[in-house]
Amino acid sequence: MILIGERINAGFKDIARAIQTKDPEPVKTWAVKQTERGADYLDVNIGAASKKPEDMAWLVRTVRESVPTKISVDSTNVEIMEAGLEALDGRAALINSTTADSGKLETLVPLAVKYNTSLLGVAMDERGSPPDANRRVENAAVIFAAAMEGGLEPERIILDPILMPLKFMQEQAPHVLEAISQYTFLSDPPPHISVGLSNVASKVTERGLIVRTFLVMAMTRGLDAAICNVMDEEMIAAVATAELILNKEIYSDSYVRAFTARRGP
Amino acid sequence: MILIGERINAGFKDIARAIQTKDPEPVKTWAVKQTERGADYLDVNIGAASKKPEDMAWLVRTVRESVPTKISVDSTNVEIMEAGLEALDGRAALINSTTADSGKLETLVPLAVKYNTSLLGVAMDERGSPPDANRRVENAAVIFAAAMEGGLEPERIILDPILMPLKFMQEQAPHVLEAISQYTFLSDPPPHISVGLSNVASKVTERGLIVRTFLVMAMTRGLDAAICNVMDEEMIAAVATAELILNKEIYSDSYVRAFTARRGP
Repeated sequence: MILIGERINAGFKDIARAIQTKDPEPVKTWAVKQTERGADYLDVNIGAASKKPEDMAWLVRTVRESVPTKISVDSTNVEIMEAGLEALDGRAALINSTTADSGKLETLVPLAVKYNTSLLGVAMDERGSPPDANRRVENAAVIFAAAMEGGLEPERIILDPILMPLKFMQEQAPHVLEAISQYTFLSDPPPHISVGLSNVASKVTERGLIVRTFLVMAMTRGLDAAICNVMDEEMIAAVATAELILNKEIYSDSYVRAFTARRGP
Repeated sequence: MILIGERINAGFKDIARAIQTKDPEPVKTWAVKQTERGADYLDVNIGAASKKPEDMAWLVRTVRESVPTKISVDSTNVEIMEAGLEALDGRAALINSTTADSGKLETLVPLAVKYNTSLLGVAMDERGSPPDANRRVENAAVIFAAAMEGGLEPERIILDPILMPLKFMQEQAPHVLEAISQYTFLSDPPPHISVGLSNVASKVTERGLIVRTFLVMAMTRGLDAAICNVMDEEMIAAVATAELILNKEIYSDSYVRAFTARRGP
């Protein structure tokens, strides 16, 4: 399971403030904490806190100097993305994200090749969010084909079917699960499949329960990555258990502890 | 989700003693408790405590007089089974269980018809427990065909792929999940699909975690029934959450409480 830590995002006040004041401490703290919990990537997003490419470069550099973890450069703006990629200085990374829009793909696939990164594609196009499983599959197929054609092997392609809030768009959850199943047939070996997990539990009372239940259900359909709160211990325990059940980790009585320990820095 | 309460089983000491002394109280207590927690069926099993058909008749009668809940008459012995069915006095029930052995099917399918019950078939044959998904599908197909031919509609057929202990036969879990997916293609609407859930967590340290994680993973593959510990509140909360995610229950902020309340007596 590829866990992408969501916490270095200017949507959180401490990170927004850190960017404004160029205070590296909160960034370092979250880089270290998430790495200790076994994050494979750290997502880095300047969000609405800044429109300056140099702020993304600063944030990526601060993370890179704090931990050896791979970085997920997260922006919808191409200039900001490229500033982040430039600041990687060769650190392994992924581009988060492209959509199925041809303009996006024509720009971001070559950037993934140039910077030798993986590419995460969200199953969205110029028509907006996908209404059903079919549109999610269509859009993902467009992304997958463009990425392959551009020179990325399936191992470097991560598809995201777009998870919606359960509270407000409950009927979308089965479509997302169905899309995940379909994505596994795109190639052999299949591409990676990820969701922005926290979104499913937007504004709900039973946040942790909904997050970890969705996650393990999606794992049995083929999900093998998630942008998520890696500090959620019950979620990590659920992931460890799902990996056992899928026979991807070996059972021991202390498997939950072993799972985190093995993934740590 | 069809929840079959596992607790009225002579494998538990209080039930074994109740059968020996004909003390109805422990039986009534568990019949009421499990019903309050939303059990759809109460499994009733005299196990190794007795070989007497009249003891099964007494146990079924005691349950029937305590609660209005449907009964799962659980025995591998045909005489004991028929004594239990006779004691139902028309109460809705299921036969737990047949296997794919032709001798079993020739006896138990007509009993299901005669007593107007559902029939649970475990995907086992004279060769013993199934080693993989294929054998689980073969055996279930034999059971399904015999039950249909005997006059049972899919709604009255419950297939059990045989869940093994994760600690000792970890590689079986993915076979069970795959078999569940395949069972959903046997007919439209599909038969019900159940597992003996507690078996997956035999001798493990993280019992509750493994049980509820397997359960929701299996639900997204098509599982819609389980013989289980309905007193496990975290498991029930996980089931309620999985039903939301599968869009089978409607979201409300108090959905966990609502789920149990709606299922109660």
